[in-house]
Amino acid sequence: MNRFWNENTRSLTPYVPGEQPKDKKLIKINTNESPYPPSPLVIERIRNADLNDLRLYPDPDSTPLKKAVAEFYGISEQEVFPGNGSDEVLALLFKAYFDASTPIAFPDITYSFYPVYSELYNVPYTRVPVKDDFSIDFNAYPSDVKAILFANPNAPTGLYIDRAEIEALLRRRPETLIILDEAYIDFGGESCVPLINSYDNLIVVQTLSKSRALAGMRIGLAFGAPSLMEGLDRVKNSFNSYTMDRLAIVAAEAAFQDKAYFEETCKKVIRTREWTKEAFKEMGVEVTDSQTNFLFASLPGVPGPQVQARLRQEGILVRNFKASRTENWLRISIGTDEEMKKLVEAVKKVMAGAAL
Amino acid sequence: MNRFWNENTRSLTPYVPGEQPKDKKLIKINTNESPYPPSPLVIERIRNADLNDLRLYPDPDSTPLKKAVAEFYGISEQEVFPGNGSDEVLALLFKAYFDASTPIAFPDITYSFYPVYSELYNVPYTRVPVKDDFSIDFNAYPSDVKAILFANPNAPTGLYIDRAEIEALLRRRPETLIILDEAYIDFGGESCVPLINSYDNLIVVQTLSKSRALAGMRIGLAFGAPSLMEGLDRVKNSFNSYTMDRLAIVAAEAAFQDKAYFEETCKKVIRTREWTKEAFKEMGVEVTDSQTNFLFASLPGVPGPQVQARLRQEGILVRNFKASRTENWLRISIGTDEEMKKLVEAVKKVMAGAAL
Repeated sequence: MNRFWNENTRSLTPYVPGEQPKDKKLIKINTNESPYPPSPLVIERIRNADLNDLRLYPDPDSTPLKKAVAEFYGISEQEVFPGNGSDEVLALLFKAYFDASTPIAFPDITYSFYPVYSELYNVPYTRVPVKDDFSIDFNAYPSDVKAILFANPNAPTGLYIDRAEIEALLRRRPETLIILDEAYIDFGGESCVPLINSYDNLIVVQTLSKSRALAGMRIGLAFGAPSLMEGLDRVKNSFNSYTMDRLAIVAAEAAFQDKAYFEETCKKVIRTREWTKEAFKEMGVEVTDSQTNFLFASLPGVPGPQVQARLRQEGILVRNFKASRTENWLRISIGTDEEMKKLVEAVKKVMAGAAL
Repeated sequence: MNRFWNENTRSLTPYVPGEQPKDKKLIKINTNESPYPPSPLVIERIRNADLNDLRLYPDPDSTPLKKAVAEFYGISEQEVFPGNGSDEVLALLFKAYFDASTPIAFPDITYSFYPVYSELYNVPYTRVPVKDDFSIDFNAYPSDVKAILFANPNAPTGLYIDRAEIEALLRRRPETLIILDEAYIDFGGESCVPLINSYDNLIVVQTLSKSRALAGMRIGLAFGAPSLMEGLDRVKNSFNSYTMDRLAIVAAEAAFQDKAYFEETCKKVIRTREWTKEAFKEMGVEVTDSQTNFLFASLPGVPGPQVQARLRQEGILVRNFKASRTENWLRISIGTDEEMKKLVEAVKKVMAGAAL
């Protein structure tokens, strides 16, 4: 505490990211990173970048990145807004669209940064409980909220809502801004980005930290009607003229251009996820039908924090969320096949130990 | 305009950065970048970075950078806060310390982003006129403001206030937060960073975009008492857990470690500035005694926008600020000796043309 902090700063409960251990021998499946390196094209472009040019400011509009993304999705550059990670994109979005006058709503179980942004910008919010099976019930959402915000597939549950259901929601609530956080969409879901041309109440947010293996470069995107993206631009240009550095722009552009590598690594993650999911089920571990690069799992009779601590003893980092409805569940990122085999063995050991 | 923009977004007048031309043949002395490339150590470290690790999130605290900066200044890591450019650091600082309840004050002529941040966060502000010679008069500042904010040396005037005068201000106003933006301090001034141990009402902000030739990597720093830095951390961790990417951290760390290159390039800029300043004076161009990497200059009898347009015809980009007190002045970044020789010739031409 410091006498100069303002009231808001005093009241904040900041987001706590997953542990970033210095010890490289740990199996790190706690923050949903890709087990595979970035595309060789990304690496080549960074290697070949003229580093003397780092003395010059970047393009404040990240134009080459916008072009590559627009081409990938068959949309226009004016429908894309890039930022310094999807966390920044989401924060700017809260600042551009919400304020104390406008309540918003999101599920009680979803990305735990949403209530943090709400507190940061004094935005009133309602947390609408997901059903017992963790699925989202759109009928439970109040009619007087300015926006509904959720991750699809949802985190940490992994559950996916198909495009037809989202389109029905967009149609039913034309005066509600629908914010879809598609951080995990590339692992089996179908993106709603193509819907932005038809629905001016839709913003889609994506990240290059998961399916494009660039968590270390901090790149996120928003998609929406040009005037929605212009709102984000106004706030960005009142906050930081250049949120993306030269190498991040180069890396992100290349990541969207190398479609083959992207598709191949996503498929590998999906294959690994599916056999791990089956192995868990066979062992009696409860798992949701995750369509992401993580599993949401619970060991019957063993408290979540205890499983997390035991796995850590085995050299494996996973994530546990302290909230009441999720405290016995673990979010386990999909690693390589080798890492997941070790995980399965370790979970067997934990279960056997618990049964003693 | 879009029906979902909130009231604040509708009212913003975003900052307009200097032009970033695609044409590399132009002499670009409009955004105060370094004419020299980043340190060879910076380039080597980026070249040798393990790019496969870009799949992993960065260290959210940028620890290696904090260490290098703390060592450079002989302070502790807890007194350093790094961010994605000093623009971001300043924005987070506004969010952490100011709000609608707390008026702040800054000079009428200073970095034009300060009023933009104030509008973004609804912070009431007073612009205190600088004197006719552009110097800042601290006696003119109201006693009831929470904070006084200014660049030292000031921009775009280039004028430097020495440390003794700032120390007197810190002592006279212990309940006012003094924010010193030292973007240009390395070109002849003496940094106030060592004062943070003695004054808990001081925050110093710096950038690696000027004297460290890393504008393209977006790196800024705040310095202050640990509990002041903690306020920034609380806001940062409620906004974006990882504001600096892995390569920016590596680059910034190396930039602080290569002290010899830093000192040598600063000296070169100072030498170039001084002879250009003298050449301008001899020609009858009015210049302030800039202690920065730019000159603030006025051609008698030629309107500023006209000089800017004429220099552009000569292939030279400089900056002109539209505000009434500065509209006949140009901010001209210090380029290489060769570039400044061309500038001097072009200015001669403009003056001769205007005299016809």
